[in-house]
Amino acid sequence: IRQGEMAGLPELIRATSPSHVGRLLRSLSEEEAVGFWRLMACSEIELATDLLDHLADLRIAAILSQLPATLAADLVLRMESDDRRDVIGLLAFDVREAVLAALPQPLVASLRLALRYEPGSAGNLLKTEMLSFASQAKVADVVRTLRASTEQIEHFEQRYVYLHDEEHQYAGAVAMRELLLADQDQQLQSLVDDAIPTVDPAMPLDELKSVFDHLRYSVFPLVDVSGRQIGVVDHKDLQEALYEQAERELLEQGGILGGEEFRTMGLGSRILRRLAFLLPSVALSYAAVSVIALYEPVLDQLVVLAAFLPLVANLCGAVGNQAVAVSIRELSVDRLSPNKLGFVVAKEIPVGVVVGLVIGTLLAGLASLRSDEGLVLLPLVIGLAYSVSSILAVAIGGVLPLLLKRLGLDPAMLASPLLTTLTDAVAFFFVLFLAQGLLL
Amino acid sequence: IRQGEMAGLPELIRATSPSHVGRLLRSLSEEEAVGFWRLMACSEIELATDLLDHLADLRIAAILSQLPATLAADLVLRMESDDRRDVIGLLAFDVREAVLAALPQPLVASLRLALRYEPGSAGNLLKTEMLSFASQAKVADVVRTLRASTEQIEHFEQRYVYLHDEEHQYAGAVAMRELLLADQDQQLQSLVDDAIPTVDPAMPLDELKSVFDHLRYSVFPLVDVSGRQIGVVDHKDLQEALYEQAERELLEQGGILGGEEFRTMGLGSRILRRLAFLLPSVALSYAAVSVIALYEPVLDQLVVLAAFLPLVANLCGAVGNQAVAVSIRELSVDRLSPNKLGFVVAKEIPVGVVVGLVIGTLLAGLASLRSDEGLVLLPLVIGLAYSVSSILAVAIGGVLPLLLKRLGLDPAMLASPLLTTLTDAVAFFFVLFLAQGLLL
Repeated sequence: IRQGEMAGLPELIRATSPSHVGRLLRSLSEEEAVGFWRLMACSEIELATDLLDHLADLRIAAILSQLPATLAADLVLRMESDDRRDVIGLLAFDVREAVLAALPQPLVASLRLALRYEPGSAGNLLKTEMLSFASQAKVADVVRTLRASTEQIEHFEQRYVYLHDEEHQYAGAVAMRELLLADQDQQLQSLVDDAIPTVDPAMPLDELKSVFDHLRYSVFPLVDVSGRQIGVVDHKDLQEALYEQAERELLEQGGILGGEEFRTMGLGSRILRRLAFLLPSVALSYAAVSVIALYEPVLDQLVVLAAFLPLVANLCGAVGNQAVAVSIRELSVDRLSPNKLGFVVAKEIPVGVVVGLVIGTLLAGLASLRSDEGLVLLPLVIGLAYSVSSILAVAIGGVLPLLLKRLGLDPAMLASPLLTTLTDAVAFFFVLFLAQGLLL
Repeated sequence: IRQGEMAGLPELIRATSPSHVGRLLRSLSEEEAVGFWRLMACSEIELATDLLDHLADLRIAAILSQLPATLAADLVLRMESDDRRDVIGLLAFDVREAVLAALPQPLVASLRLALRYEPGSAGNLLKTEMLSFASQAKVADVVRTLRASTEQIEHFEQRYVYLHDEEHQYAGAVAMRELLLADQDQQLQSLVDDAIPTVDPAMPLDELKSVFDHLRYSVFPLVDVSGRQIGVVDHKDLQEALYEQAERELLEQGGILGGEEFRTMGLGSRILRRLAFLLPSVALSYAAVSVIALYEPVLDQLVVLAAFLPLVANLCGAVGNQAVAVSIRELSVDRLSPNKLGFVVAKEIPVGVVVGLVIGTLLAGLASLRSDEGLVLLPLVIGLAYSVSSILAVAIGGVLPLLLKRLGLDPAMLASPLLTTLTDAVAFFFVLFLAQGLLL
């Protein structure tokens, strides 16, 4: 339908429900998407920019990379400042420089500034669309500025106007509703709300979340160490960043390196990302099963154990992974300091004991169905092996994300595969060791 | 420190950084927290309410349940409307009714209205703190109302005021900045921004996200089927709901039923939640390993296979879970319709083939280290078994979340354990079946 002819397409898009348009655009292949935006950007640049919002940032970056730099710059120019920074940050170096070269100078300077702030810091959520006035300015000046702005300023921060002194130092925020109540010739600095704190661009996101939770303001001024306001940070943008982080962690926990894959991406990069996770898993998994190889003589005499090894190991991995998930969550919502190893172990051991007894008894029951060969102690071996392993599994599982975090590694990515290796090895060992002792 | 004596505590809290206070409060046990808020609510009710924001809703509900109903109602009264609804919704029926009985009547009516909207709908994000005027009202009336409001209205929606006609039907929204530009005696209805769409409270969250992504407004009026405005829905609250949903899915994917556990919760409920996931896993895992039991005669002669069974199965589960994670993500960001089974299979098979060949070759290499017993075909059996299993694993893994979604079941919770059972069974079968055919 959309190969080439554009007649009526913008009208059609405007008439269709956003969620329908969004789903359609997201289902385009990369090639189709590049073609679509090339056409749209030429004729309907505003609409083309708005439609980009339906896609993930990585996807937008991929599309922009394949458009002519001037066209890409036209789109980037019309984006909101936070999206613009995210997308520019994702472009390859040469593409980025080509796009920047086609943008107006002041914007390039502020973009380079924003890109300096690391992901995970308040500065990275910088929004520059705000109204800023000298502190001696009067209410009438704000009214005049607003009246003169022919641009659509709907995406500007509208709840406050911000003040600066002669040295461009931040000088306070005035609520828009206060302006409504004030006389036209009142000085802005007399209306400043002193209760509004400033936020350092280096503040980490979890701390920023505490500040937003604690104080009922929905937007804060970002003021750097030199005392200059570089923009604002909005509660909505924080929640959006936290949401994207959680979505990325979901994929990482599922074994997608880098936390980013959509099936519309190129096959090569999809396979590489997946292999990057699987190849180390081969080594880990092989290390775990080498415990079995060590006990081959035991297995030789008790081949019935071969079916119980994966059973005990799987359930041991499952209980350990629950502890991993709880620790990762508690770390990510800042409920747990990475130093509280003792606290976590103390909270996990009782769970491990009860779960070990319940599931261990169940497994012993299942084992008794298969112990007709005179192996009266087989249920005991299986039940005991699971109980012991499950206690170790929850303790290791609870502590592992904390240790990884302390080492500066990503728990969402690494904890689960490492834990499974350890629980496999533990489970294999206890089943075979106890079997050797009690059954042979 | 905080057992009993309160002197200076509020001052101390106000002087401490929010993120520090937050971490401290989150680390309290339930008993300590109940004691803390009992004391705080009696003397410093505003601060006590603000401090609740540091906790998860479920935790707040647990604390409120253990406070006297009038004290709990005092706290609930001061919460923001969206938090209030969430917390009230989490209370047990009798506690909820006791708290509602202690609240003012109009509030109870609006709470019961809000509770009617299901989680996952726009109505569930309802915020009632807004300024509403008759459409014949003048700008001066808004100014008078704002001036008269001695209450702190910082958490009111401030970007717009909303209009209603004589029959209480919704009549449009006026931007606060337009009020600033208008004459005092101008009628509000002449300032309405016609481009702002209304949102139906029944709209699902993913659709609402599309609307916010598509249009650059940060807040929409919620208007029900009768044409009456019941409140507003804010982009921030949507992102917060999506974030909480993603966090819940992370826990569910890790095997925590209901997606909610903190280590400060009671031991009993923590164990029950974990067992609720593990008990079905025992059945699933036992079903998978029964494939091994079927082939016991093969194993009896080739005990070396015992170590390769879990190895092939683990790696087969890992590659299948990657496909599961991508499907769950694509479903959750509305990039994939649950009907596109063919698309997913077509996109997964090539990944499965390449991964199968790469990892299969690697496993064959590892097997050749152990095939000194004259089993020259062992590497072939292991490599081939993995390749075939991996293709099946990615296809099943990709499709399973879609099928679960179509059945109205929760993919985040169920897809991974079901997939692992299937991949285990597939991997065990192919290793043993090929071994029987090629090695015996």
